Amino acid sequence: MKLKPISIIHSPFLQALGTPIQPRLANGAEGTVEIFDKYAPGLKDLTGFERIWLLYWCDRAALEVSGLVVKPYLDNTPRGVFATRAPARPNPIGLSPVRPLKIRRSILIIRDVDILDGTPLLDIKPYISRFDSFRVARSGWLDEAIGARTVADSRFEKKIR
Amino acid sequence: MKLKPISIIHSPFLQALGTPIQPRLANGAEGTVEIFDKYAPGLKDLTGFERIWLLYWCDRAALEVSGLVVKPYLDNTPRGVFATRAPARPNPIGLSPVRPLKIRRSILIIRDVDILDGTPLLDIKPYISRFDSFRVARSGWLDEAIGARTVADSRFEKKIR
Repeated sequence: MKLKPISIIHSPFLQALGTPIQPRLANGAEGTVEIFDKYAPGLKDLTGFERIWLLYWCDRAALEVSGLVVKPYLDNTPRGVFATRAPARPNPIGLSPVRPLKIRRSILIIRDVDILDGTPLLDIKPYISRFDSFRVARSGWLDEAIGARTVADSRFEKKIR
Repeated sequence: MKLKPISIIHSPFLQALGTPIQPRLANGAEGTVEIFDKYAPGLKDLTGFERIWLLYWCDRAALEVSGLVVKPYLDNTPRGVFATRAPARPNPIGLSPVRPLKIRRSILIIRDVDILDGTPLLDIKPYISRFDSFRVARSGWLDEAIGARTVADSRFEKKIR
């Protein structure tokens, strides 16, 4: 199970502090992705999707800092990491439904970016309402959480020595 | 970027042929996941979410068989792999929004499973409507695709020699 980056994501966010915690809270923040030549043929037919999933490697998130029970951005109570969207996880794979604004050859301009600049991109999948959109009645601890925060701080970030 | 399985997924599907292509088309198919002891504390607070994302490694999908332009299950025209949900991809990470039926210690009983038995599980994230549910008007090539198929065949599966 070895990952190969298919691109590097570029965004206005150089550190966790101040980075939006989800695309829906990103106020349209713009980013760029240039898919490596080798993988560019896989982009065919991506035009016409209103939203796409980016899967990426949260390379600056540190599980060793936070552990398996973490204090999430939207609550003050520690929660199991698999019940949160914290970037620091046993396999730190990020998942963001962003909006492709323009696709030109191997370059994508995207909006609603909540990803750190320089993050390795692993996969792109089309967002398909029929398969991905569910109206759920219950969202666990989030139903009673404070949930006012829209941007991250450094709690999940690797410390630079 | 090295992955560590957090569990092995068990399902009724022993081969791609006949496996549902998406949770929404899985007719409630039931599976089991027993999280490895080491990661079990991370499951805290997962109860109460109506749906959860499973991220897993499609270990029997073969990119070398299909290449970067693939004929998807829902159309007869070859499409760029990043514009499809085909399991055979440069990084074969699967993404399924399943329903947790019961969580007891480290064991999850799940419904709407569209995953092969024995698949390594990489991550669990809660499905949060506010962040994950989008009503999109356009779904690219899928808007005009046939889309009648609900189960897979062996087209993306590694050939056993």
